[in-house]
Amino acid sequence: MRLLRIHTDDGLRDAVLADDGWVATLPGTSEAFDPDRWRERAAAATGPAVEFEAVRLAAPLSPGKVVCVGLNYADHAAEGGQQAPAEPILFMKAPDTVVGAHDDVVIPRGGEKTDWEVELGVVIGRTASYLADEAAAMEYVAGYVLVNDVSERHFQLARGGQWDKGKNSATFCPLGPWILTADEVPDPQAIKLGLDVNGEALQDSSTAEMIFGVAHLVHYISQFMTLYPGDVISTGTPAGVGAGQKPPRYLRAGDVLRVWADGLGEQHNQLVAAP
Amino acid sequence: MRLLRIHTDDGLRDAVLADDGWVATLPGTSEAFDPDRWRERAAAATGPAVEFEAVRLAAPLSPGKVVCVGLNYADHAAEGGQQAPAEPILFMKAPDTVVGAHDDVVIPRGGEKTDWEVELGVVIGRTASYLADEAAAMEYVAGYVLVNDVSERHFQLARGGQWDKGKNSATFCPLGPWILTADEVPDPQAIKLGLDVNGEALQDSSTAEMIFGVAHLVHYISQFMTLYPGDVISTGTPAGVGAGQKPPRYLRAGDVLRVWADGLGEQHNQLVAAP
Repeated sequence: MRLLRIHTDDGLRDAVLADDGWVATLPGTSEAFDPDRWRERAAAATGPAVEFEAVRLAAPLSPGKVVCVGLNYADHAAEGGQQAPAEPILFMKAPDTVVGAHDDVVIPRGGEKTDWEVELGVVIGRTASYLADEAAAMEYVAGYVLVNDVSERHFQLARGGQWDKGKNSATFCPLGPWILTADEVPDPQAIKLGLDVNGEALQDSSTAEMIFGVAHLVHYISQFMTLYPGDVISTGTPAGVGAGQKPPRYLRAGDVLRVWADGLGEQHNQLVAAP
Repeated sequence: MRLLRIHTDDGLRDAVLADDGWVATLPGTSEAFDPDRWRERAAAATGPAVEFEAVRLAAPLSPGKVVCVGLNYADHAAEGGQQAPAEPILFMKAPDTVVGAHDDVVIPRGGEKTDWEVELGVVIGRTASYLADEAAAMEYVAGYVLVNDVSERHFQLARGGQWDKGKNSATFCPLGPWILTADEVPDPQAIKLGLDVNGEALQDSSTAEMIFGVAHLVHYISQFMTLYPGDVISTGTPAGVGAGQKPPRYLRAGDVLRVWADGLGEQHNQLVAAP
């Protein structure tokens, strides 16, 4: 099932995208992310359907936290001159950085190196703490969502300290268009994903290339923090970011991104200058 | 005015602590943090008052994000063998790590070096983005709150990557007991603060010792991310953390913390082992 949220004249609404491309709008929005309840409500939905192309997309959920994984594809670590990490590198994006899949991405003032990172997002469905093993981890995954971990490299790497400084400008976490529930993803390590800038394919890879897979990450992160329903883990990006181009290439106002992953839909974002 | 939230038999309630030590409970809780509205509701409150010693404290707000500042006291940087930073170091705690001022602090499984950090927390009252200068910054501060930036040094420093891994275990952000509104804080750089472990004073300093003061931090952070009402900036800790003791000394189940700052009250937390 594909879960999404849309802006309507009556406010934000939960919705479901059917196989025929029509969106069924549900009454209201979920207070807490609960995929089972969403499914039940979808089964009982009686409202009019809308064509997907006609809806105004919101992010499909408002995460409680967004835990990001750094350097989780060997080719991306290498393009940055970094060694593949011995264990997952974690950092965070604030929930308020999340925007919808068609929203503008804002280049921050003082930003010199605004960069892209297509990533597989894992949506947590059940509270996960100190999971016993990787085999148990997948029961805590509600679904998957497309994430662009937008990054300002100048803030991240040249302004002192931790990466979070370059990961949290407003609009830096386009999420969606939808959550694909886990029952429809037979193997999260076999999802092709990529990113185009102005029509040029610059990232084109597969989650098969991840150093630490989804089950490993959910188990691992649960040892350090508690994961709650509606939290998102962004699992790292493959090679092809702007900093890895020769010469490096960064985003400018007017650029257009297409971000995609098989089964997870596409993001289309325009870059704009900070007001 | 001292704003707090308390657990009652009818659920979580906003409240106000009067000078005479009595707590006036307000109807309901604020959806979004709005100190002016809180003040208006307090003026109209007619409910019975409760003695402060008798209330069950919750955290005084649920932050949208918690932005932490690293190495912001020269003596703390020095005790860790670090140079004072040229500009503020930022990292993040997830909002779900927040607990009340009297709640237990849980030593995570695998935690070997769970440590304390008394800090002045700045509560944001108005949306702040690209503030023009430090002088403007103080208009965006709603008040101040006591924070213990609990840290597992083994996760933070020895498990690869960014500090967030050691800053986000459950219960790692005791907050409160109350928010002291900014109108009652003539100089946020003249607040004494400290921390005792089992009755022994190990941190005892003043916000006068901060490298980057509150106005600098609010202005600075607003250049990298948008600050929203109810966000908290935790401004860094002075010398005297466990890692800085000779020999280093870390928290164990059964230890008792007293965390204090002038005007901001006291936290009393018991350390417990992870279940």
